[in-house]
Amino acid sequence: MRAGFGKSIGLHQMNELGNLETPIALTNTLSAPIVADALIEWSIKRSPEIGIGTGTVNPVVGEVNDGILNDIQGRHVRKEHVFEAIVNATSGAVQEGSVGAGTGGVCMGWKGGIGTSSRVLPPRRGGYTVGVLVQTNFGGALTVNGAPVGRELGRCSNSADLPYEVHAAGDIEGADPEIKVREVSNPDGSVMVIVATDAPLDQRQLERLTKRAGLGLARAGFYSSNGSGDFFIAFSTSGRIAHDSPMTAKAEVVSNDAMSPLFLAVVEATEEAVINAMLKATTVVGRDGKIADAIDIDQLLGAMRKYNALNWSRTLGGSRRVDA
Amino acid sequence: MRAGFGKSIGLHQMNELGNLETPIALTNTLSAPIVADALIEWSIKRSPEIGIGTGTVNPVVGEVNDGILNDIQGRHVRKEHVFEAIVNATSGAVQEGSVGAGTGGVCMGWKGGIGTSSRVLPPRRGGYTVGVLVQTNFGGALTVNGAPVGRELGRCSNSADLPYEVHAAGDIEGADPEIKVREVSNPDGSVMVIVATDAPLDQRQLERLTKRAGLGLARAGFYSSNGSGDFFIAFSTSGRIAHDSPMTAKAEVVSNDAMSPLFLAVVEATEEAVINAMLKATTVVGRDGKIADAIDIDQLLGAMRKYNALNWSRTLGGSRRVDA
Amino acid sequence: MRAGFGKSIGLHQMNELGNLETPIALTNTLSAPIVADALIEWSIKRSPEIGIGTGTVNPVVGEVNDGILNDIQGRHVRKEHVFEAIVNATSGAVQEGSVGAGTGGVCMGWKGGIGTSSRVLPPRRGGYTVGVLVQTNFGGALTVNGAPVGRELGRCSNSADLPYEVHAAGDIEGADPEIKVREVSNPDGSVMVIVATDAPLDQRQLERLTKRAGLGLARAGFYSSNGSGDFFIAFSTSGRIAHDSPMTAKAEVVSNDAMSPLFLAVVEATEEAVINAMLKATTVVGRDGKIADAIDIDQLLGAMRKYNALNWSRTLGGSRRVDA
Amino acid sequence: MRAGFGKSIGLHQMNELGNLETPIALTNTLSAPIVADALIEWSIKRSPEIGIGTGTVNPVVGEVNDGILNDIQGRHVRKEHVFEAIVNATSGAVQEGSVGAGTGGVCMGWKGGIGTSSRVLPPRRGGYTVGVLVQTNFGGALTVNGAPVGRELGRCSNSADLPYEVHAAGDIEGADPEIKVREVSNPDGSVMVIVATDAPLDQRQLERLTKRAGLGLARAGFYSSNGSGDFFIAFSTSGRIAHDSPMTAKAEVVSNDAMSPLFLAVVEATEEAVINAMLKATTVVGRDGKIADAIDIDQLLGAMRKYNALNWSRTLGGSRRVDA
Repeated sequence: MRAGFGKSIGLHQMNELGNLETPIALTNTLSAPIVADALIEWSIKRSPEIGIGTGTVNPVVGEVNDGILNDIQGRHVRKEHVFEAIVNATSGAVQEGSVGAGTGGVCMGWKGGIGTSSRVLPPRRGGYTVGVLVQTNFGGALTVNGAPVGRELGRCSNSADLPYEVHAAGDIEGADPEIKVREVSNPDGSVMVIVATDAPLDQRQLERLTKRAGLGLARAGFYSSNGSGDFFIAFSTSGRIAHDSPMTAKAEVVSNDAMSPLFLAVVEATEEAVINAMLKATTVVGRDGKIADAIDIDQLLGAMRKYNALNWSRTLGGSRRVDA
Repeated sequence: MRAGFGKSIGLHQMNELGNLETPIALTNTLSAPIVADALIEWSIKRSPEIGIGTGTVNPVVGEVNDGILNDIQGRHVRKEHVFEAIVNATSGAVQEGSVGAGTGGVCMGWKGGIGTSSRVLPPRRGGYTVGVLVQTNFGGALTVNGAPVGRELGRCSNSADLPYEVHAAGDIEGADPEIKVREVSNPDGSVMVIVATDAPLDQRQLERLTKRAGLGLARAGFYSSNGSGDFFIAFSTSGRIAHDSPMTAKAEVVSNDAMSPLFLAVVEATEEAVINAMLKATTVVGRDGKIADAIDIDQLLGAMRKYNALNWSRTLGGSRRVDA
Repeated sequence: MRAGFGKSIGLHQMNELGNLETPIALTNTLSAPIVADALIEWSIKRSPEIGIGTGTVNPVVGEVNDGILNDIQGRHVRKEHVFEAIVNATSGAVQEGSVGAGTGGVCMGWKGGIGTSSRVLPPRRGGYTVGVLVQTNFGGALTVNGAPVGRELGRCSNSADLPYEVHAAGDIEGADPEIKVREVSNPDGSVMVIVATDAPLDQRQLERLTKRAGLGLARAGFYSSNGSGDFFIAFSTSGRIAHDSPMTAKAEVVSNDAMSPLFLAVVEATEEAVINAMLKATTVVGRDGKIADAIDIDQLLGAMRKYNALNWSRTLGGSRRVDA
Repeated sequence: MRAGFGKSIGLHQMNELGNLETPIALTNTLSAPIVADALIEWSIKRSPEIGIGTGTVNPVVGEVNDGILNDIQGRHVRKEHVFEAIVNATSGAVQEGSVGAGTGGVCMGWKGGIGTSSRVLPPRRGGYTVGVLVQTNFGGALTVNGAPVGRELGRCSNSADLPYEVHAAGDIEGADPEIKVREVSNPDGSVMVIVATDAPLDQRQLERLTKRAGLGLARAGFYSSNGSGDFFIAFSTSGRIAHDSPMTAKAEVVSNDAMSPLFLAVVEATEEAVINAMLKATTVVGRDGKIADAIDIDQLLGAMRKYNALNWSRTLGGSRRVDA
């Protein structure tokens, strides 16, 4: 429920009223209003009293500017796509990579997209699950399990090769000349992080969760460039709020002293979700023939091996492409 | 640039980047996304590089839930209406009352709508102008120039006659039995306040302006009910920012010590704008035959006379209906 | 738990952790640190494990700059005064006026100080009590029950007669020449508002309460000048948090839909508390012989009578000086 | 100018007024008020008009709870220490490690303390310098240049071995049994980050800088536990504000589009400052004989070598102990 900037829609009310009334939809920047309108329409179909016999509805939409690959000016997303996405939403494994709102995402020089990961706390910590879903489209230098993969493979996607123009005082000659910026770079890309948990948390505690999402992104190479419209949204599935609420509601809330494991879970799952997005992504040819290629797994493993970053991490577990 | 809650669109970026890229459009809650989409389309027409050769655009839309009179579920606002509003926008006197996004507004038991007011600081205070435009649709008990008009005329529009269910300790019998709540009340209505100034202010100073807008509303009877999605937006016309900005920009900014007159101007102009909205409003018959009647000027003057609230205020100056 | 600016201490943690660990102490600006240190010492005496076997303690101190009357540079408040204040704190009627941290307060041209007021909701609204305590030391033009008392009695305490230098466009001649600014004015004074309630509210709901405190101040004449370091703190007595908290805590929280009466109660009680502070204040001769005189009750009543502001308000109930 | 929580003093005003009036002093949690009082006293000595002929002064104090080693309950810091620190402050190399407010810091299982680092942008990026100073006292698992040093050397300082109780879903057996938590752990430690730059930035841009400081901490192993009272303060040396300011001030401000290099500089310098703090720290025996030992450089280098984290980083440049 915390926002950097960007054009996301619906976050003010989540923060103020502490509730979430619609599915959270992700799309590209210029399609955010259309998607919000579709969420309104979908909500009215289910609750015909909206705006007539009862209050309004607050659509929640996240977005990134994936205009490198995507003809966002064309605003090709239609209401029907939103309805279809909601109808087809299921439990179980989440599709990752170049799918849905992740189709156009470019992340640190490679194809990005949708990624997800989760952590389950041990029973004596509450046994809660923390799930994270990211829509990655940001610049930086990829780091996997500590290995400087972006640097090793000669890619980063900052505006004009940023990391290597910034030097320690007195060390300007130390610049690394081999690093090339990909043509399909997104100097000012953004990222959306959605944190879902079954831990009973109120708005204050959820907002504290969101403050940790950025730390996980940083571990993967994110530095939050000027144009990075980072929105971090957290919600709990534990506290369904009846529409006609009584005067008071009983709530169970995790105590401050028990929050640290949840915070660490957010950091770890966010980092892993970014990596998963890249591992599952497939090469996409976008508008004007621009290509964002998926990271080469062999090269990735090679780079990780060079930095002894394999065989001890939980980060790559469960990835289709690494398993292959 | 400060937000309570509600479904307004585009405020995050104003706060973070300190700029305003489109006209500010006002509408009803459920039409906010469509209007934002129209602003995007309008912007693309003027700047065809948006989303292709340059960045995106951040549409700014304010809204209130005027669903008492308005069939907001129908979302009757179309893009063409937005284009038309922009094309027809002119300098000079601002239309007030039951016009545009104010057509459906109900305010403290009477017809509300759009209102505006301004203050000009004396030359030795900088000679700046502060203009305020309000979209009124909120509950409360109307106070005009200090006179308890709502109370006097037996109207307030709080949920279930709120002000008179709240008592001083030990004084529960003191309830005022004569006050009737109008059927067309809006217990949870909202308000938008747009503050425009030619004073050279940066985002920090503009945000400070917005914090004073609520004080002006309070003087008119506002108490910010639960559902009140109050957004206060301030912008300065003094600092146009080139799209291709150089590395640094010179800016002139009003010093902290010179801000107080601007703050008072915001308070006064906001109060007056609320009153003007009601004075200029005309009776509207809305959906399902619901009527919100304009305040009766004779009754208003009578109530003000009773409280000696005439002949010393600047608040009613320039109103068509009072002049009549 | 919401802050404007100023030098108050301890508010960050209240917002982040949602708890209050010490009494809230009020003092003058330059004594805030000493008072915070005293709260730490007092807390350690009661809980000798602080900082050794358990965590630290977060002292909460509010302050205003009452340097017009008070030799704040001398920092005359000593730890013993804090201990004494805590030991002597009792239930029952709260001392108001020129007492404690209100001794030096000047408010809108007269002697201000400590004031308090409360509202009790009717049973079907929850029956909750909302109590407000203010430490008034701000500029503006006193309004009592709608009557423009400051204007009528020729006093306001804005920097250089502010309200009457700000004009409606085209009406610069309308200035009111009779208004005189008191020599003991405080152009940039501040105000602290403490809201206490037995309503079960979490941090999010309490923060919403604080946003309404400013509305009550505005009704009394406040406009929040540049130097006004306004801090609004709200706490609930309903949710005591054990030091060794279990993993989760059950909490009862008022629903959003039931908040409006509490909001209105904050607005009304804050307005009344400001008036009570002035009614109970006694004339104080401060440093360098400066005098801030208490408002003359007869003159006040005369001004109120002129604007028909007597005999219908709850605002003046219970005041000693009006009773006299 | 951004705050998490904690007991730091003076930040509200920095955010609201956009200025810094005193040196920033760092100390331990329970001594923060005394240090603030000393800053007031020091300021009055230099500007005898404070609180009499002119306004007050806003002392800025940061703090961490270093109570593991430090007898914070004793509040041994006296005003004289603060005066001495200010008088002895010089340009040039900053003392790092177990000095000053860093004497008691424990960081991720080893002795922490004060660390500093900087970046200089290339001329075509403005040539600005970004300096970061950290007061480290937080939990996590040390990562140096990507190498998992904390994990490798069997230390982390989270409450009850946190990182290894949190597992990927379905992978609970993957726990790492060898990691031991140090007895001198600080599960809820904090960190202060002070960012200083000569880039001309206003409060909005400075606040954006502070949002990046956490990303640098994350790269070093920080996850922001529940009790972590993280305050990130940024100031610019470019915009000195005269006490008697004219009505407006001309300011040069870095454009949004030129901010990314500054953001990356903050991320990198913050990461490096944390590492420098640990490299320069010396073993400290604290209260009750508790020992926090400095990291063993040979072991560190061994761990880094294992992960190929040497010979390519700028992070360790200039450290005395590694040079030795």
